[in-house]
Amino acid sequence: MPSPEFFQVLPAADALALYDQHWQPQTALETIATAAALDRILAADVRSPEEVPAFRKSTVDGYAVRGSDTFGASQSLPAFLRLRGELRMGAAPRDDIDAGDALLIHTGGMLPASADAVVMLEYTQTINEGEIEILRAAAPGENVIQAGEDVAAGALVLQGRHRLRPQDIGGMLAVGISEVEVISRPRVGILSCGDELTPPEASLTPGMVRDINAYTLSALAEKHGAEPMRLGIAADAIADYRQRAEAGFAVCDILLLSAGSSVSARDYTRDVINGLGEPGILQHGLATKPGKPTIIAVCENQPVIGLPGNPVSALLVARQLLPHLIARFLGRKPELPATSKARLSQRIASVTGREDWLPIKLTRAADGETLAEPVFGKSNLIFTLIDAHGLLRIPLNTGGYDAGSLVDIERF
Amino acid sequence: MPSPEFFQVLPAADALALYDQHWQPQTALETIATAAALDRILAADVRSPEEVPAFRKSTVDGYAVRGSDTFGASQSLPAFLRLRGELRMGAAPRDDIDAGDALLIHTGGMLPASADAVVMLEYTQTINEGEIEILRAAAPGENVIQAGEDVAAGALVLQGRHRLRPQDIGGMLAVGISEVEVISRPRVGILSCGDELTPPEASLTPGMVRDINAYTLSALAEKHGAEPMRLGIAADAIADYRQRAEAGFAVCDILLLSAGSSVSARDYTRDVINGLGEPGILQHGLATKPGKPTIIAVCENQPVIGLPGNPVSALLVARQLLPHLIARFLGRKPELPATSKARLSQRIASVTGREDWLPIKLTRAADGETLAEPVFGKSNLIFTLIDAHGLLRIPLNTGGYDAGSLVDIERF
Repeated sequence: MPSPEFFQVLPAADALALYDQHWQPQTALETIATAAALDRILAADVRSPEEVPAFRKSTVDGYAVRGSDTFGASQSLPAFLRLRGELRMGAAPRDDIDAGDALLIHTGGMLPASADAVVMLEYTQTINEGEIEILRAAAPGENVIQAGEDVAAGALVLQGRHRLRPQDIGGMLAVGISEVEVISRPRVGILSCGDELTPPEASLTPGMVRDINAYTLSALAEKHGAEPMRLGIAADAIADYRQRAEAGFAVCDILLLSAGSSVSARDYTRDVINGLGEPGILQHGLATKPGKPTIIAVCENQPVIGLPGNPVSALLVARQLLPHLIARFLGRKPELPATSKARLSQRIASVTGREDWLPIKLTRAADGETLAEPVFGKSNLIFTLIDAHGLLRIPLNTGGYDAGSLVDIERF
Repeated sequence: MPSPEFFQVLPAADALALYDQHWQPQTALETIATAAALDRILAADVRSPEEVPAFRKSTVDGYAVRGSDTFGASQSLPAFLRLRGELRMGAAPRDDIDAGDALLIHTGGMLPASADAVVMLEYTQTINEGEIEILRAAAPGENVIQAGEDVAAGALVLQGRHRLRPQDIGGMLAVGISEVEVISRPRVGILSCGDELTPPEASLTPGMVRDINAYTLSALAEKHGAEPMRLGIAADAIADYRQRAEAGFAVCDILLLSAGSSVSARDYTRDVINGLGEPGILQHGLATKPGKPTIIAVCENQPVIGLPGNPVSALLVARQLLPHLIARFLGRKPELPATSKARLSQRIASVTGREDWLPIKLTRAADGETLAEPVFGKSNLIFTLIDAHGLLRIPLNTGGYDAGSLVDIERF
């Protein structure tokens, strides 16, 4: 007869520390189009191959002049300059200007070699087709940005391990960097095991359930910047389970096993993980609910998580571990989940020696306050999490929460 | 001589209200694989085609029994039952049980027709190969979940306009919904105009700059759940500009025009937009910095934004308008941007009648506090935003902020 399992459980934070101790991520790099690099992580520092701006340009609409020609000009005593035409955008000036000349120029236009300032339109007046009045002096350099003033050639533009935002993509393209080296997304392999599991597109025969862990875990991995790989369903037989796990392990960076409900599948999971390489299983059992039967392992410098088969447990346990592993692979700190303050609708008891994660539905009270209501489900099916907006964490060894407590709800 | 532009400016919130008044989004729907639907928006309510669970199953590891056979059983006076073997996972029971029988069953296993309760392993003892002791009575229904108890056939599983999370994908797949109807992502067309603009992969000739607005705005649209369409660069000539704008307008749902710096390009933008259909331009000028020259328009029930050509201005103005338009297209409320509290390093003056958005760099002070330091840039190039972690909004008609004020920084 199978005996119930007894083991020393470990807080989730300690389990993450075990991964950190036993795993040195070997990140892979890839070169992709800068335009397609939103949210990707830079492999290394990026320096500008060019200076910005590439030429001396006007920062306003006005007249390019030699500043010295405007000295002393005022409303009552304007300077008179010859108008030498209009600068065409997108081209170098056709001719230089001489002393006493002015050239109509637009914002971003390239200054002729001998011009050193731009007088804004509002401080000028047209006399006739060929002559303008300057009503205010312009010092050399006024309304002009020098070549290289914004970014020197070789200057650091972005630091390695930075997550690319819209402006970062724009900045790199501005200096001609149209391809960029980023850290490859970690491949998260997901293998389910159990004779009762069938692919979700199949119709059910009596006793079978659809395997959804492969899909909820794929979506979680994708949300956190990884590339999920669904490895299928292993039969509850050691040979098939081992073969599929080994094949998946060989092509992924992080392996998730979600063991079926039978006692043999759970036993096989231990054997299969230990067969993947040294050091193997580091810890069996987390001091969290859900999470007790979780297996923490590193095999041949590759993290492996043995997850419970129950879909709610599998997803809530993976949330505690997987984002940390993905972030570490990418050389980043895990991002803190968004939280909302809410007032608890009822007392929540806690159990000593265990951290609890409770699905919470948020509702709006008559007075506009946000209420947090626990979602309980007898069978712990995935629908408990569909009804919930987030999770309440009840930390280790606390007295739980009284009804009416103001708590932080971690949003899905 | 071109004259400076004077117009009545409008707060951004009023500009959004103008879109809401003049635009009734015509959303398109599409059917996609449920497994690929993360973050997509449900077109309509989803009901379960099946009941869950599909059969009566055990919620524990134990023995399936007739509850009445265990009545009165206790540690001191156990009930003795015949062991009829073990239920294979993933299959219907081969035989039913008779009075006095027990069947070893795993969590999720299907109960034989005459069994109505499951006794947990911990309350049993094996006597010999064919006989067990039951040490505690099990009431009918104990540790059993009835067919349809979680979800009845036809029950509402998810509501229309819901954004799909990992558990929602799992829940739909659990009831056999392998394809789902979602709202098509709005196509955001982006057209840049200016003779000085060149595609970013080209090498620069004197007077030219690379067009980056098409890429920063694409990334912004993508971040907010839209499908960007880059429409290229129009020459600063009304015929080419109009032709490209019309061609793009015909294939997108929201059109962004980012006009070059020349006065003629700005003038053409007005003509081009008004040529796209009624009612055309609703407002020229926002009471925001950056944002003054922005054009708000709806043409043939399709929103159009005329953006400034400056990359910082174009991106910061689009942030104020585009997420609202995308969310409205998807039938959702725009999501609030994440904010961080920080202490201002210096006084920020404000200008009456205008809302300011100031790029902010966050740093950590010696005492651990987060400091907000404004990033100023003479030429207002995109690198100002690369150096920043977020934006400080200085609301309309306030006195600005004193040094040391605790402010909310909207994170990029």
